[in-house]
Amino acid sequence: MASNPTLEFWFEFASTYSYIAAMRIEKLCRDAGVRLVWRPFLLGPIFALQGWETSHFNLNPRRGNYMWRDMERLTAKFGLPWQKPSEFPRNTIVPARVACAIADEPWCGDFVRRVYVANFGEDRAINERDVIASILEELGQPADEILARAESAEQRPQLRANTERATELGIFGAPNCVVDGELFWGEEAMEDAIAWALGRRHASILQ
Amino acid sequence: MASNPTLEFWFEFASTYSYIAAMRIEKLCRDAGVRLVWRPFLLGPIFALQGWETSHFNLNPRRGNYMWRDMERLTAKFGLPWQKPSEFPRNTIVPARVACAIADEPWCGDFVRRVYVANFGEDRAINERDVIASILEELGQPADEILARAESAEQRPQLRANTERATELGIFGAPNCVVDGELFWGEEAMEDAIAWALGRRHASILQ
Repeated sequence: MASNPTLEFWFEFASTYSYIAAMRIEKLCRDAGVRLVWRPFLLGPIFALQGWETSHFNLNPRRGNYMWRDMERLTAKFGLPWQKPSEFPRNTIVPARVACAIADEPWCGDFVRRVYVANFGEDRAINERDVIASILEELGQPADEILARAESAEQRPQLRANTERATELGIFGAPNCVVDGELFWGEEAMEDAIAWALGRRHASILQ
Repeated sequence: MASNPTLEFWFEFASTYSYIAAMRIEKLCRDAGVRLVWRPFLLGPIFALQGWETSHFNLNPRRGNYMWRDMERLTAKFGLPWQKPSEFPRNTIVPARVACAIADEPWCGDFVRRVYVANFGEDRAINERDVIASILEELGQPADEILARAESAEQRPQLRANTERATELGIFGAPNCVVDGELFWGEEAMEDAIAWALGRRHASILQ
C-alpha cells in the first residue's frame, strides 16, 4: 500500500454528538493505523438548506429530550465530563476558524478536545476570543498570533470552503467520517468508517 | 434476582432501521439472557405529533439519500437481503395488528423477521392480507384464523394502545429498546440497551 488510509473527521463544535465522537476519534484512528484529518465546518448553513433556523433538537422537543438524556448516558459510558450547556447551539465561528488554521498541527486534536470539554463539560462560552485564547495558552501556543492568523483575510475563507465541501459531500448533520468520499454519519458509525478505511468492506458493496 | 431482565423492542414494519434491528434483537437478547417483549406500533401518529405527514427521510432528501446508502452498507454488514422498496413508507396496519395479536407466541420473532424481509428484501406489499396470509402459512400457522383474530373488535384496540404507550415513553422514531422505562433509540443503541438491562450502568447515572 502506498500510504496509510485516510479518514476525514467532519465536526461542528456546537454539536453534542460530535463531542462524544471528537473525544474518541484520534485514538480509534491511531490504534487502527488510519490517518486522521480534522475538518471543522459550520452546521448552520447546512441546517438552513434543510429549512431549519436552529438545531432540530430545538425544533423537535421529543427528539431533543432524548438527545439530552442520551448525552448523560454516553458521557457516563465513555467517562467524559458533562454539564448541559446553558446555551444551545452555541455560535462556534471563532473556534472553528482556529481549528481550520491549525488543522495540520500535531496538537490540533488537543485543541479540539479542549474546546469540546469547555462547551459540554464546563458550559463555557466557546465563541468568545478570551475563552479560546486561554485554551491556546493552556496548550502552550501563542494565542494572539494564532487568533490573528485564524481571522486573517487569507485564512478566513477556509471555514466557508469546508462548509461548502461538506454540503457537496451530502452532509446533513454531525459528526461525520468520510473515507474515499463515503460518508458515515453519527458517533456510532465511527468504527464502521474505520473498517471501511481498512478495506474491510463487505464483498457485495465493493465497487 | 427474581427473574430475567426484560427488554421491550418497539418497532414499526415500515421503518428501515427497524429492519436491521429486528433481524438481530432476538439473538442479542437470547445470548445475554434478557427476556424480549415484541411491541409493534405505528409511527404515523407519532410523526404527525412532530408535524410530519410522512417519513422525515422523504421530507429531507439529504437525510433520505444517506439512509438509503446506509441501508446498502448495513444489510451487507449483517448479511441481510436488501432490495430498495418501491413504496416508502408502506402502510403497515395489517402486519402490525397481526404482530399485536401474536406478540406472546414463541414464533412472533419468526413472523416479524419474515415480514421485514418481505418489505425490504423482496419489495412485497406487506399491507395486503394475501401477503401476510402467505407468510403465516409458510410458518405453519392458521392464517385465516389469525387474521380474523387480529382484526377482531377485541384485538384491534391493542395497536392503538401500543402507539399511545410509545408516545408516552417519548418515542419519536424507530426502532427502540425500552428497559425499565429507559429509552434507547436506533439500531446502534441495542447493545447499550442490553447492557442497561443487565445492570451494567455507569455509576454516575445510577439512580
